[in-house]
Amino acid sequence: MKHYSKKVSIKSDQPRDYFAITQQVSFVVSESEIQDGLVFCYSNSNSTSLFIHIEDKKLLQDIDDCLHKLAPEKPYSQYTFNVNRTDAAAHIKSMLLGRQVCVSLSGGQLDLDEDDHIMFADFDGGREKNILVKVIGC
Amino acid sequence: MKHYSKKVSIKSDQPRDYFAITQQVSFVVSESEIQDGLVFCYSNSNSTSLFIHIEDKKLLQDIDDCLHKLAPEKPYSQYTFNVNRTDAAAHIKSMLLGRQVCVSLSGGQLDLDEDDHIMFADFDGGREKNILVKVIGC
Amino acid sequence: MKHYSKKVSIKSDQPRDYFAITQQVSFVVSESEIQDGLVFCYSNSNSTSLFIHIEDKKLLQDIDDCLHKLAPEKPYSQYTFNVNRTDAAAHIKSMLLGRQVCVSLSGGQLDLDEDDHIMFADFDGGREKNILVKVIGC
Repeated sequence: MKHYSKKVSIKSDQPRDYFAITQQVSFVVSESEIQDGLVFCYSNSNSTSLFIHIEDKKLLQDIDDCLHKLAPEKPYSQYTFNVNRTDAAAHIKSMLLGRQVCVSLSGGQLDLDEDDHIMFADFDGGREKNILVKVIGC
Repeated sequence: MKHYSKKVSIKSDQPRDYFAITQQVSFVVSESEIQDGLVFCYSNSNSTSLFIHIEDKKLLQDIDDCLHKLAPEKPYSQYTFNVNRTDAAAHIKSMLLGRQVCVSLSGGQLDLDEDDHIMFADFDGGREKNILVKVIGC
Repeated sequence: MKHYSKKVSIKSDQPRDYFAITQQVSFVVSESEIQDGLVFCYSNSNSTSLFIHIEDKKLLQDIDDCLHKLAPEKPYSQYTFNVNRTDAAAHIKSMLLGRQVCVSLSGGQLDLDEDDHIMFADFDGGREKNILVKVIGC
């Protein structure tokens, strides 16, 4: 079994933002020279999420609106954890969508549906965040 | 390290539906002749989910009711993404439950609790959907 | 490829409770003598969840409050699955956060951010629950 890992860095300028990181992950996979196995991604920051979905601005607005209803930022007084004002809501959104994804790897290619992407969500933007990409296989 | 992958197809006749696909995944595992490792499942469609749970009609009704409250279909005007009427809500449900699961594989058997199943949810039924099953191990 | 698996047991005395299990998982990893690969954890009970996050009492109270709003226990009559009074809500919480996590393993160490933990949530406490830890790699 071969293995390879590398960090991918993302910086958002928006309070909440969504990015496709498929291209960056594919680059790590090609560096790994691993053809078949699994690609595991883990987001190091606890106010971010990773998920697999299509990259569509309207739909990302809809999921953002929905998450904002499920875990609203205001009133700040509803949360006991309040290091800064937006933090608690960002953490909860992160837990609801999760912080990791796996993608199957076959013949050196990510097994993703044509329109699918590895999506990164930053619910507390403004600082650089890191995603660990680990490739295992042969 | 050995690897094997195959697609499993599911078609629902209901607008929203839930299926146990453990048997189909187990069949792929036995074809793979891999004894120990990981089984990774990824649902190719972005209005579906995969999760591990018991298969109980009443409980699936309850989770369906809950998801329908968290991401209701109507009013359609609440969503900006509206290729067809039910789509945005189906996509959001898919993101909340997630589109992938792993199962541990030991001695050729899926390591699932006695009552647990690999569950597939289709939130926009009517068309055939595919699930990629990837087995890695030895 | 090498593989190793072991169960970790957790018992909560509270109706709903949250534990960091990183130490127990790290112990299984060191027993495995596997240096590089993936660590997969699966919670055997369908009223529990696993997720990666920081272990902070205030924040865990906030996520507990949020989940309790999304899937409240009362009124019991809102659920059709009601083997005992708290069950349906516990199952739904379990599905929303999910029952499995992967962690990357490099040089014998879990690749987790400094403050991150493998967190176990029991939404129907009082009985011992098991988590399967499967390590694959080389």
